[in-house]
Amino acid sequence: MTGNIAIVGLGPGRETLVTPEVRDMLAQATDVIGYIPYVARVAPREGLTLHASDNRVEIDRATHALQLAKDGARVVVVSSGDPGVFAMASAVFEAMQAQPQFAGAEITVMPGITAMLAAAAAAGAPLGHDFCAINLSDNLKPWETVARRLRLAAEADFAMAFYNPRSKSRPHQFGEALDILRGACGPDRLVIFARNVSLPDQTLNTVTLGEATAEMADMRTVVLVGNSATRRVGKYVYTPRSAP
Amino acid sequence: MTGNIAIVGLGPGRETLVTPEVRDMLAQATDVIGYIPYVARVAPREGLTLHASDNRVEIDRATHALQLAKDGARVVVVSSGDPGVFAMASAVFEAMQAQPQFAGAEITVMPGITAMLAAAAAAGAPLGHDFCAINLSDNLKPWETVARRLRLAAEADFAMAFYNPRSKSRPHQFGEALDILRGACGPDRLVIFARNVSLPDQTLNTVTLGEATAEMADMRTVVLVGNSATRRVGKYVYTPRSAP
Repeated sequence: MTGNIAIVGLGPGRETLVTPEVRDMLAQATDVIGYIPYVARVAPREGLTLHASDNRVEIDRATHALQLAKDGARVVVVSSGDPGVFAMASAVFEAMQAQPQFAGAEITVMPGITAMLAAAAAAGAPLGHDFCAINLSDNLKPWETVARRLRLAAEADFAMAFYNPRSKSRPHQFGEALDILRGACGPDRLVIFARNVSLPDQTLNTVTLGEATAEMADMRTVVLVGNSATRRVGKYVYTPRSAP
Repeated sequence: MTGNIAIVGLGPGRETLVTPEVRDMLAQATDVIGYIPYVARVAPREGLTLHASDNRVEIDRATHALQLAKDGARVVVVSSGDPGVFAMASAVFEAMQAQPQFAGAEITVMPGITAMLAAAAAAGAPLGHDFCAINLSDNLKPWETVARRLRLAAEADFAMAFYNPRSKSRPHQFGEALDILRGACGPDRLVIFARNVSLPDQTLNTVTLGEATAEMADMRTVVLVGNSATRRVGKYVYTPRSAP
């Protein structure tokens, strides 16, 4: 194998959040692979082939990247946010492990600004103490695993960030998640719905768990839940550095 | 108040990980405030005053930033990594809330690449499924809170990232943390010690919990612990996207 793969994070959307090293890696690529809206963020140029694919074909896409690299290409796999957070990096390593012909593939992962940290920055500092990140989709794990993890995270008094809280194919589970949290944390806990984070049409909606409804989230929303000490000051929401 | 404050993340150390918007904000600042080694990363120039202070004076530093902004300065508070993850953002909001003369301060938080995501990228994708971030320092919370949170995080089968695992003033607690994790997760769980992440002298040491010792970490180390499915493929460590 003479080629290589970089799996890079484009950040949540605003171009000023793309790191210089990711920008440089894209400038050197022969092939860029990813989900349609992420590949659309890469400017076409001579010598660069853009391979855009639909959602939910991560392993096919990863295998394609590994094959192109094996054939000598300089491949960049693009993810939104950070590629190691509910994104393409794990998929590429899964595909590599499942297919022995790709043993020895040369892979570099380049971090990016993940959605929860951009959302937290936009709101203030709600993840300023111990926190967890949970993918609420049950595409790849049973819902009962998600529900159990939510209960334990609440018991541990973590601040929380939820990726993929709700989609058209899963309209009801996020309501269940809110019910679990209300039961564990009470109605006064602060919740931030951050939609289209870092883009010109970004919206932030801060409510209490008592006020939160499932309809406040969609697939373009990241949801942050404070810990028991999270509070407001002026228009900002933050979690103090000290206990809990 | 005519000035303003930007609280920005410089990333873990490599200059190619500083986002363009943070770079631009530094170029417009009249005053940069932060812990000595982070301020040392900002180039001096005419019209810019650098205010470097020692560790553990976060509230004094935050108050200084608020006062300079109140007097009309364009202040940038610098943190390593992301300013909202165990860094200066929460301290500034705490100082603002405690001192009514700073109500109405105009504050912008700009995200950065946090150490755990740079470490994860360097190792592969060990945080590729649900995960948590815990500050192991007991400067600001009782050790029993940390210990309890570790047990619950293990029970939830989160991958984990530990900031501030060990310092000269707290040499023993990290050993206790490893004992708790061995009890909860068994000896085969993968642990990554990532030191000086993203810098030329970065080291990655991947061992099992059975092999891990407290001496493998110091104050320049971020520690990642896999979940029950985290595995190796070639020289990489990753966590699959699917259950657990």
